[in-house]
This record gives sequence, structure tokens and C-alpha cells, in this order.
Amino acid sequence: MVNTKSTDVFSSIVDSAEKRFCRYGLKKTTMTEIAGDIGLSKASLYYYFPNKEELFKEVVSQGHQTLLNEFEGLLSSDVPAEELFHIYLKKRLVFFRDFAHLSSLSLESINSLKPVYAELFENFRKEEILLVGKVLAKGIAARDFDNLDIAYFSELFIAIFQGLRHNVIIKKDIINITETEYSLLQKQYESALNMFVKGIKK
Amino acid sequence: MVNTKSTDVFSSIVDSAEKRFCRYGLKKTTMTEIAGDIGLSKASLYYYFPNKEELFKEVVSQGHQTLLNEFEGLLSSDVPAEELFHIYLKKRLVFFRDFAHLSSLSLESINSLKPVYAELFENFRKEEILLVGKVLAKGIAARDFDNLDIAYFSELFIAIFQGLRHNVIIKKDIINITETEYSLLQKQYESALNMFVKGIKK
Repeated sequence: MVNTKSTDVFSSIVDSAEKRFCRYGLKKTTMTEIAGDIGLSKASLYYYFPNKEELFKEVVSQGHQTLLNEFEGLLSSDVPAEELFHIYLKKRLVFFRDFAHLSSLSLESINSLKPVYAELFENFRKEEILLVGKVLAKGIAARDFDNLDIAYFSELFIAIFQGLRHNVIIKKDIINITETEYSLLQKQYESALNMFVKGIKK
Repeated sequence: MVNTKSTDVFSSIVDSAEKRFCRYGLKKTTMTEIAGDIGLSKASLYYYFPNKEELFKEVVSQGHQTLLNEFEGLLSSDVPAEELFHIYLKKRLVFFRDFAHLSSLSLESINSLKPVYAELFENFRKEEILLVGKVLAKGIAARDFDNLDIAYFSELFIAIFQGLRHNVIIKKDIINITETEYSLLQKQYESALNMFVKGIKK
């Protein structure tokens, strides 16, 4: 085994893992299967990722980054702040559904995995708050929004939509989202966003 | 043992249980202690409540009813709809904190108790939605609010504030609420309510 990690191999592992998690969930995917998919020895796979949880974290983390980067690109465009919020929430809801599907985790297992994921989720939350802050700042600069406390309202924004998502998962044993729940969430997201924007508009 | 249940004994049991749960939490309270508090034999206590969970359900259920009744009384007063929402949310938040204190449950144990409590919480939620619907109807009748879909907006109202509460408990092992979390929730409740009301105002 060489002592350097290849970016190509790293990417192939993550891609294959994502496909497997997506189809079978975290629990039913084995490291052996992922290694097999890309013709890698198990030892080599463990050289890149010491366990399945680390690999899952990488998949989720890349998902976070893609979401944030795609959106960061829009910030400098001439799309108005209110429209940016609509776009962001649409993407965020799809991400939520994909993650639920990817993990098919029980709340209990999420709790037992907490130490592994807590930091990941906390970092993502912080980056989301910063991003929402940038949208608010854009809206304030354009005189669309009142001159408000950006830090507080960014956090409130994230809390409201996170709360609506939490309502769906807290009641169940396995975190899966039905079509009905997803449609209701979409509708609640729209209504809550309209209220939020109306609340901070000049 | 006589074959009829005395309302006085029933009330004494519930009062004593509430005090114990409040001081020591559900897990650390025993049926023997509750019986001892009011000089009742254990057999008599079990005649009224077959187990501690049933007794806890009664305590919580009476809490729900008190909250709902107190508020129902205000509905026919001349307090405007917007002010009624403020009053309700204040009471609801105190109830949330008391319940967390009463139970000191872990999310895991709440999940394992789900079949016992699911119906209780679902009924409370339904009654809350009806109550919020009455406030909305009052505001519409007074031409304070737009003529909106009462069923949908009542559910959205409950979902938003329930979501803000869920954010606090989903992240922890034991459902206890710190002073900092409570203060932030109070602030978020105020802001979210102002947005909600602004969103539906004529």
C-alpha cells in the first residue's frame, strides 16, 4: 500500500458509497460491497476510510458543500433576496429528503451516532446561518428589507424551517418521508417564507 | 376494596403524583412513594391506576385540559385575536417547560413510550388546532385578519411553534430545557408570532 491517497480513488469510493446508501440505506450497505463496486481491496478502502460512518459523513458533507456552493454562486447574481430564499428552501427540502433516504436511520440510531455527526450538522447549520445572513444583507442593501438584526433573523429563519422538518421526523421510528409529508412540508415552507418576508419587508 | 372509585381519592393521587414527578421526574418516582404520600395502600393505588405510565398520562392530560380550558374562557372575552395568540403562546411555552421538567425523559424512552403517549399528544394537538382555529375565526370576524383557510393556517400555526420546540429537544439525550434555551425560545416565539400575524393581517 502506498502512503499517499489518490483523489481519483477517493472520489470513486464516495461516488459508489453514495449510490449504495441511496439505494439500500446506511445500515444495509457494507464496506465489502463498496470496495467490490470499484474493484478495490478492502484494505485499500480502509486506508481511505477507517469505517463506514466516516464514509457516510464524507457523502453527507459533500452534499452539504454542493448545496452551499450552488447557492453561494447565486448570491452575486442579480436575483432579488426574496427569490433567493425561495430557491434556497427548495434545494434544502430536496436535500432533506435525499438525506433521509440515504440514511434510513432510526432516531435511536441517530442518537447513538450523535458524537459522530453532531459536529457535521452543527457546522452545516452555522454555514447555513451565514448564507441566510448574506441574503438578508443583500435584501437590506437593496432596500427590500428593513434594517434588522441580521444574526438574530438568520438564526430565526433557519430555526423555523428546521423546526418544520423536525416535526416530521420526531414522531417516527425510522426517518423516512412520505409523499404526503413532503407535499405538506413544501406548502408549509412556502407559507412560512411568505410570512417571514412580509414580516421583514420595508 | 370497594368497587367504586372516589373522586377525592383520584384527585389526591393525581396531585401527589404531579408533585413527585415535578420534583424527581417520572423515572425516579415510584408508585409506593405516591401511595405513601396520601396514606393509601399500594393495592388501592393500583385499583385507580394500573401502572405509573397511566398515572403520568393522567397528570399530563389534566395539564392539557387546564391549559385549554383557561384559554377557552378567554375566547368569548373582548380580548382581540392577536393578543389571544400572545397569551396562548406564553402559556404553551410554560407548559412545555413544566412537562419537560415533569418527565425528564430521554428521547429514546419517549420513543419506547410512544404507543402509550402517541394518542394523548395527538389529541392535544388536535384540540390546540381547533382552538387556534377559533382565534383565527375571531380575528376574521373582527376584520383584523384576511379571510383565510382556517384549517390550513391553524395547522401551520401549531407546526411552526411545535417545530421551534422540537429544535430544542431533538438534539439532546435528556429532555431538559436550560434557561438560555428557554429565553431564546421566548424570543423566537415573539418574532414568529409577529410575522405570522403580519402575514395574515388585513
